Amino acid sequence: MSDTVDDALLSRLIAAEKVARAGGEKALAYFHQRDTLVVETKYDLQDVVSRADREVEQMIDQQIRAQFPDDGFLGEEYGLQAGSSGYTWVVDPIDGTSPFLNGMPNWCVSVAVLHDGVPVVGVIYAPTYQECYVAALGHGATLNGRRLQLDATRTLQNHVTGFGANSHVSPDEVGRILASILAAGGNFIRIGSGALMLAWVAAGRVVGYYEPYMHAWDCLAGYCLVKEAGGWYHPFNTEGERLLKGAQVLAVAPGAEADLKRIAGL
Amino acid sequence: MSDTVDDALLSRLIAAEKVARAGGEKALAYFHQRDTLVVETKYDLQDVVSRADREVEQMIDQQIRAQFPDDGFLGEEYGLQAGSSGYTWVVDPIDGTSPFLNGMPNWCVSVAVLHDGVPVVGVIYAPTYQECYVAALGHGATLNGRRLQLDATRTLQNHVTGFGANSHVSPDEVGRILASILAAGGNFIRIGSGALMLAWVAAGRVVGYYEPYMHAWDCLAGYCLVKEAGGWYHPFNTEGERLLKGAQVLAVAPGAEADLKRIAGL
Repeated sequence: MSDTVDDALLSRLIAAEKVARAGGEKALAYFHQRDTLVVETKYDLQDVVSRADREVEQMIDQQIRAQFPDDGFLGEEYGLQAGSSGYTWVVDPIDGTSPFLNGMPNWCVSVAVLHDGVPVVGVIYAPTYQECYVAALGHGATLNGRRLQLDATRTLQNHVTGFGANSHVSPDEVGRILASILAAGGNFIRIGSGALMLAWVAAGRVVGYYEPYMHAWDCLAGYCLVKEAGGWYHPFNTEGERLLKGAQVLAVAPGAEADLKRIAGL
Repeated sequence: MSDTVDDALLSRLIAAEKVARAGGEKALAYFHQRDTLVVETKYDLQDVVSRADREVEQMIDQQIRAQFPDDGFLGEEYGLQAGSSGYTWVVDPIDGTSPFLNGMPNWCVSVAVLHDGVPVVGVIYAPTYQECYVAALGHGATLNGRRLQLDATRTLQNHVTGFGANSHVSPDEVGRILASILAAGGNFIRIGSGALMLAWVAAGRVVGYYEPYMHAWDCLAGYCLVKEAGGWYHPFNTEGERLLKGAQVLAVAPGAEADLKRIAGL
């Protein structure tokens, strides 16, 4: 890697952490006065959004475009603005909006940077926990500055697996997947924020995360974190319009990779 | 209620909060050095325990027996010591041992007091969140001193349902229940601590909690909390040896009661 590329990467890594933390603090202020937020629904009653999501995304967008005007920017709430630098920011201002609006602590800000379609920076900030997960391709992953490295002895059977699904996945399919994890001797948790569960994979708190249909803004930061902590992820197609479509998402520690690939049909 | 009974109840309420907080702080100290704990398995690989669970239970047991020597005491790790006062303490020193040992924040200390078999005090303390949920029969429920009152407009369809299961429940049955919640227009989360999810029902963060097979130490404190916040719970049989057996557990806000009873087959 040339020094020039490295500088470009590291300047974006620093900016990513800065905007994730700033966005998280803004979201946390809304969280503490969430009774005043008007809750709107999107796809169905379970798919909610509020002013907090939109304002955090706008704030991050403005800060990034001021510093990197030629980069692309994709946010969950306002969609894609194309760039010309080869770098694209992919942001979920609040992942876990339903936990957020219901007063649960399980939500986060997710900021990824793609370079030529590959996630090269991943930052996930969970304000209620004051935990910041940071990774850059080839530079490792950290949680609040402490290096993350997956334990190869952990398996589907001696650890817990994270799971998520939205209404794009049928109830019967969700039931089938979860029964498969249990039948294989595993156990699962589901906290309502896929991005945060991916960060928890990188931190070794769960052995893997599987979601049958997930968007780029939910998974790409977590993917970078898991890879840099020593795990594997199922590639997400970021080419052209595919970046805007949902896809199967799996990120996993080495000892559970074969089991979870089988359950996911990969 | 006579003054004498009330004094007896309130002295136990105060003691319950005190031991839950002290137990929680002791557990939290172990949590921060959990890499040093030897993890043992009980029923299967997913059913774990450590020295932290045992020492927290012993500490609570000693403090309670010093103050209320004639009360009974049932703890998850050491079983039942009968009493003669009509009061029985029911304690889970760490509910969510698997999240605890894996570094997740979703665990708590659960302390209930039964009077003639009815849960009259419920305290749940979640140390990583510094949140203490406290209830006494007829005296309301609070979270860190703030009164809890359920919102009757929340339903299975416009809120999230908590779920839990252990290996007493078959994988297919778990899949069937979760598919039923989704098919009814609901959504679910599962954080790995049933007691904490019951406290979250009382706090309105989830609309209900269902677990097909749960023990007294996991649910009785939460039951008291949910009732005092304005919810309903499926009675747990506390007579004689039944207190030691698992049973179906459901606690729910009014707007989701009919749906969750139907899904639970109640």
